[in-house]
Amino acid sequence: MRITAEKLKELAYSVLVSAGARAEDSKLVSDNLVESNLVGHDSHGVIRLPRYVKEIREGQINPRASLRIVKENPGSLVIDADWGFGQVAAAEAMTLAIDKASSAGVASAGIFNCNDVGRLGGYCTAAAERDCIGIMTVNDGAVYTKLVAPWGGISGALGTNPISAAVPMGLAPPLCADFATSVLAGGKIEVARKRGEELPVGCIIDALGRPSTNPEDFFASPPGALLPLGGAVAGHKGFALGLIVDILSGALSGSGCSGAGERYAQGVFILVIRIAAFTPLEEFIERASRLVENTKASPKADGISEILIPGEPEWSEKEKRLREGIIIEKATWADIVQTAGEVGVHGDWK
Amino acid sequence: MRITAEKLKELAYSVLVSAGARAEDSKLVSDNLVESNLVGHDSHGVIRLPRYVKEIREGQINPRASLRIVKENPGSLVIDADWGFGQVAAAEAMTLAIDKASSAGVASAGIFNCNDVGRLGGYCTAAAERDCIGIMTVNDGAVYTKLVAPWGGISGALGTNPISAAVPMGLAPPLCADFATSVLAGGKIEVARKRGEELPVGCIIDALGRPSTNPEDFFASPPGALLPLGGAVAGHKGFALGLIVDILSGALSGSGCSGAGERYAQGVFILVIRIAAFTPLEEFIERASRLVENTKASPKADGISEILIPGEPEWSEKEKRLREGIIIEKATWADIVQTAGEVGVHGDWK
Repeated sequence: MRITAEKLKELAYSVLVSAGARAEDSKLVSDNLVESNLVGHDSHGVIRLPRYVKEIREGQINPRASLRIVKENPGSLVIDADWGFGQVAAAEAMTLAIDKASSAGVASAGIFNCNDVGRLGGYCTAAAERDCIGIMTVNDGAVYTKLVAPWGGISGALGTNPISAAVPMGLAPPLCADFATSVLAGGKIEVARKRGEELPVGCIIDALGRPSTNPEDFFASPPGALLPLGGAVAGHKGFALGLIVDILSGALSGSGCSGAGERYAQGVFILVIRIAAFTPLEEFIERASRLVENTKASPKADGISEILIPGEPEWSEKEKRLREGIIIEKATWADIVQTAGEVGVHGDWK
Repeated sequence: MRITAEKLKELAYSVLVSAGARAEDSKLVSDNLVESNLVGHDSHGVIRLPRYVKEIREGQINPRASLRIVKENPGSLVIDADWGFGQVAAAEAMTLAIDKASSAGVASAGIFNCNDVGRLGGYCTAAAERDCIGIMTVNDGAVYTKLVAPWGGISGALGTNPISAAVPMGLAPPLCADFATSVLAGGKIEVARKRGEELPVGCIIDALGRPSTNPEDFFASPPGALLPLGGAVAGHKGFALGLIVDILSGALSGSGCSGAGERYAQGVFILVIRIAAFTPLEEFIERASRLVENTKASPKADGISEILIPGEPEWSEKEKRLREGIIIEKATWADIVQTAGEVGVHGDWK
């Protein structure tokens, strides 16, 4: 199934509104999901729409939530998201932090009582588009999302605890990093399983702690675990990074750290740095651009045609998909159409 | 050579004063170096004393430097370190950022015209001891410290760009992470070379980009390169992290990014988060402590007796070395004694 971004947004919007969400929230969430499809991260795209509708029905998502700032300082704020859409809370928190950073220099926000915020890179990019460096980390406190083994351990103790950062690069698109602090993101194992493919060596262990390349070992009962970034040689570094992300996102926000409760709850930490508070923007961009240029000019490994900077693959994928449309896998499309039908949205989306 | 921390501090202090440094700076730098020895990071300890004396003599370190705040906001500041000791500038910047965070909630500092700051963990721990989360990143802009290959590249383009974070844990010592964003820290390769040992698989490549375990390949001419954290499977993540550290430390501070110049220059980025600006301190510590307890209680891999939290190995090493003294390798001790003699410090340090 190939569909334009505009049509896909329309569909997602209609489904969310019909499921009981506010018009402005539905717009924000559907734009966010389709943006993930556009940049090539289909795992964070409209594939999540049926889940969100189900979560509204089950009371996990409150479609009429009211955000509330519960604590505030010149450079910090904490938001109770009232169990609304994570995207709405994250976008608002990022905007407020950018505003605060404009006078304080840097500013930070925490969010609790929050649902899935989707892909992180987009929020950080919004900060970069306002001449700031945006940094964001997320954890979730549910027992069943403890997927990543600690260094020296063989069972999941932490979530995949992602981190994202975006940096303005002048006329070029922002540099945008966005990655799980495990060797692989959880979704990659799901994809390999569905396709019957092996995983690369060094990503997961089975329930007995033995290295495995078989995605089934990860989903078995008792389950295997993901290894922290760094794997067998330097997994203590990924483990440390995962703990820091967990503490920033879960302990500081008040949302709770990995394994804290039964309910799915994303904790969010946002940091915004106004570049001009440190150095003239043009000079900053000159320094950062020279670093990127020097790096891209490095001698390449065999089979590598270009050294890509974080964010570059996403920007070229977006250009392509805006032009050629977004391909949705058959099973995903069937789920979406069924969900749409359930909330009374019918139509010819081809 | 075994020596007590107190005697080693005395020796380092006398050497620095005799080399022309101010008394208060000499105290701070010698305490900092010996603290690195105490916590087990000898690569960042008094082994650096001869280098510092040489750098004073050659004009790289200005022993009479005056720090200057060149830019300031309620939550941010930038310090020109006037090419003084990095330790003096970093300690002062951390103190000022902690003070600013007490009213702003979070605060950040950049440092430029700065020499080696030594081990990062100690500065972050100082923030943790004042009920803040302390985060610090460092790069250096000298061409000859481009040691880490970009993802897809085969030559050094970035420094090892370390990152550190410390978190208060109530009655327990702070959690303290401190690691290079390459698979290995540069010093580890030097150590393996001196001892004639092989490196683990997946840490370095030779000048042609071939995987190697021979430290000589790294130091050859043309040189090999370190791989970014994540290695062959997930090196794009370590590469992204290294770029972000480089940009925060070098582009934001004004010090310059990796490869920007001929002179050794550390750029520093500091972030301080006052926990009580987000959540009551006791609740924060309860959440973070439960995460640590759950993680430590995870089933262990074969041969692992305890899952260690970042900072734990350092705390137990410090206890041991405070009790038993610090062992300095013969060659290092000879260098130190020779340096001491050159600046007119003589004595029986046994």
